[in-house]
Amino acid sequence: MNLILLLDDDFVDEGRRVVLRGRRLHHVLDVHRADVGKELLVGRLGGRMGHGMITSLSDDSLEMEVALFHDPPEPLAVTLVLAAPRPKVLSRVVSSVASMGVKRIFLVNAWKVEKSYWESPRFNEDHLWAQLILGLEQGRDTTLPVIESRRFLKPFVEEELPRIIEGTTPLIAHPSAGEEFPRGKTGPITLAIGPEGGFIEDEISMFRRAGFRPVRLGERTLRVESAIPALLGRLL
Amino acid sequence: MNLILLLDDDFVDEGRRVVLRGRRLHHVLDVHRADVGKELLVGRLGGRMGHGMITSLSDDSLEMEVALFHDPPEPLAVTLVLAAPRPKVLSRVVSSVASMGVKRIFLVNAWKVEKSYWESPRFNEDHLWAQLILGLEQGRDTTLPVIESRRFLKPFVEEELPRIIEGTTPLIAHPSAGEEFPRGKTGPITLAIGPEGGFIEDEISMFRRAGFRPVRLGERTLRVESAIPALLGRLL
Repeated sequence: MNLILLLDDDFVDEGRRVVLRGRRLHHVLDVHRADVGKELLVGRLGGRMGHGMITSLSDDSLEMEVALFHDPPEPLAVTLVLAAPRPKVLSRVVSSVASMGVKRIFLVNAWKVEKSYWESPRFNEDHLWAQLILGLEQGRDTTLPVIESRRFLKPFVEEELPRIIEGTTPLIAHPSAGEEFPRGKTGPITLAIGPEGGFIEDEISMFRRAGFRPVRLGERTLRVESAIPALLGRLL
Repeated sequence: MNLILLLDDDFVDEGRRVVLRGRRLHHVLDVHRADVGKELLVGRLGGRMGHGMITSLSDDSLEMEVALFHDPPEPLAVTLVLAAPRPKVLSRVVSSVASMGVKRIFLVNAWKVEKSYWESPRFNEDHLWAQLILGLEQGRDTTLPVIESRRFLKPFVEEELPRIIEGTTPLIAHPSAGEEFPRGKTGPITLAIGPEGGFIEDEISMFRRAGFRPVRLGERTLRVESAIPALLGRLL
């Protein structure tokens, strides 16, 4: 973790002193090999970032004085509409996109999404939250992304998406598209990405009717865990 | 697999008929649910690509007539110099970069690379070969990338790299660099990427003396498995 993320419950007096145990304590001990007096990068979930100085340290707790002076980095102006990937891939993708600054993710169903995926514990809220935290710690950010699941694609695309894409450029990744995915600082984008095997033609048509333009990334078809950072990397 | 990769040993008469068993047979049966008469995308490792028509099929073998008419896609003109990542990450990174068209990879040591990584079976040639094949099948390509390992960074950078970077732009990913990683179709690039935690300053200096320019990708520090596709995606 490049940043130690502090939760409201860590604070022992308002905004100045925190006590950490568990995973973050062990990380500080094992990876930072930190000691009393050492300063570490910290940030308050949903708040500002700064430094924390270790004031006491034992095998089961750590105390820091914190000073939070600056805002987290700007979000990446991309809303992801992602067909539910395999559960193991989902975990990696969620922490990866969180580390890149995405703040809004819709996990949606699609013809080629296996029904069983939705039953996986990796799709539950606590597990997704933990992956988001890992991503924020990696990318040094404190703004928690929001993930919402939609088990029915058609009503989502037809009834909800029109509001979601307002003020954004709606694009759908499609290997045989004629247009290339943009490169460089664009305005806000809503980006739809299909499952392994892709959206079927009916689904692509549905997104087109909702205003999405198909775009491709190079000549090769990539796995979702490579495709997503490859697409987002062009916007950084 | 988006392409069934054929090996020389699969051919029963020169260049026209192949017999498949094992992993590829099972993929055709379970994923393509193919039958006699069906055409599949095929390519010969190190050779051309085209179609194969299934002429016979049983539980333990499949025969195809193949016609290989076109060349594989152009390689991505990037030579990767990659500090050895954790073994599990290595496997994913190797198939990811193979799927994106990279053809030359040097796995190198660095101060922050754990010695034990090199002893992992995931670093052996057969395992790496299998990951490369998965990447080619994903990206629909037949040109096998070459991976070489260098356990000593200094002689590699000082003695070998000068020849390797000839005719390329040598860049090293570094979060605090002032210059941005390029975007768009550039000429050939040699790209050095550090381990988790980064190259140490001495190593960066060594690469600089060898002609490398530090470049960064956005404001956030990414894990190697996100950073590599994010960097390469800008060049696609």
